[in-house]
Amino acid sequence: MSERLDAQIAFLREADKLKSVLRASRLIDGSRRENSAEHSWHIMLYALVLSDQAGPDVDINRVLRMLLLHDIVEIDAGDAPIHGDVDHAAMAAREAAAADRLFGFLPDDQATHFRALWDEFEAAATPDAIFAKSIDRLQTPIANLVSGGDSWVDYNVTLAQLEQRVGVPVRRGLPRVWEWLLPQLRAFFARNT
Amino acid sequence: MSERLDAQIAFLREADKLKSVLRASRLIDGSRRENSAEHSWHIMLYALVLSDQAGPDVDINRVLRMLLLHDIVEIDAGDAPIHGDVDHAAMAAREAAAADRLFGFLPDDQATHFRALWDEFEAAATPDAIFAKSIDRLQTPIANLVSGGDSWVDYNVTLAQLEQRVGVPVRRGLPRVWEWLLPQLRAFFARNT
Repeated sequence: MSERLDAQIAFLREADKLKSVLRASRLIDGSRRENSAEHSWHIMLYALVLSDQAGPDVDINRVLRMLLLHDIVEIDAGDAPIHGDVDHAAMAAREAAAADRLFGFLPDDQATHFRALWDEFEAAATPDAIFAKSIDRLQTPIANLVSGGDSWVDYNVTLAQLEQRVGVPVRRGLPRVWEWLLPQLRAFFARNT
Repeated sequence: MSERLDAQIAFLREADKLKSVLRASRLIDGSRRENSAEHSWHIMLYALVLSDQAGPDVDINRVLRMLLLHDIVEIDAGDAPIHGDVDHAAMAAREAAAADRLFGFLPDDQATHFRALWDEFEAAATPDAIFAKSIDRLQTPIANLVSGGDSWVDYNVTLAQLEQRVGVPVRRGLPRVWEWLLPQLRAFFARNT
């Protein structure tokens, strides 16, 4: 029991470092860049609130667990900005090594369970993972629409790029939210380009 | 549908402000104070990892929802440091008003549901809320033991105060974790006072 708890607490202390991983996007008030821990909290809130948009085959409890765990690999691998110039194969390798090390702090049963949830999220093939990925892509555009563009400006993002990088995953998991969002994105880019 | 989604997104955008509510405690590396959004993420991770310490009457899915929502009132009411000099009746009134305003952004069914979960957490009388409160009190001591005391030093906290303010709630929901923690707290205070 004590050895198990020692391992669990070592993992939970290591996880503190996610609060120092900075994302490309800022808080809505523009005061500073967002970190991956508070982002993870926020998208779990998105998932709970928008769970009425999920299909009947989505288990919101599993979605919340995926979102809770999804960015922990960034402690070692860093955040890959969606609009940045990223070598996706190299990033995937770094993230897999990070998952080995970080989930490896935990007792074997939990390490296996958490790793399976993270792998499922990354593969984005099950209903739960498709919904979770949609939620993950949604938060920044929702913020940027009211904060003047933020990372879209920094990265010179076009509406066509957003329709690909955000629209494709969001449409898969949250089709009606994408229908609601797209006219607002069009209006924003018509005003700002 | 569109009106419902407008209300949900307004709530989710307002919730961004929780990332700017600072707690008394710092990150483990001492680099800055922790905010209530990243704290909420971290204690959800605590709850999931330590769910094997929960009694059979605890529903971890409800616990995760409570922890996701538990600090949102701090957007209006601020954080009340556990070791600070706080007027608890006045704070409770501010938090209740905050819950009215913040959950009031949501569609009625969700506002009612979220408010009930928050009220249950605050009352700390059901097995789920008792476990959630224990988890909430656990994160800072676990961090302080490896970061040199942090907020214990700032607030001149004694072991006797910790046994009351942390020990009482943690023992209720996580008795074996408290048994594991107490000797470490004793050793820390023996070294540092």
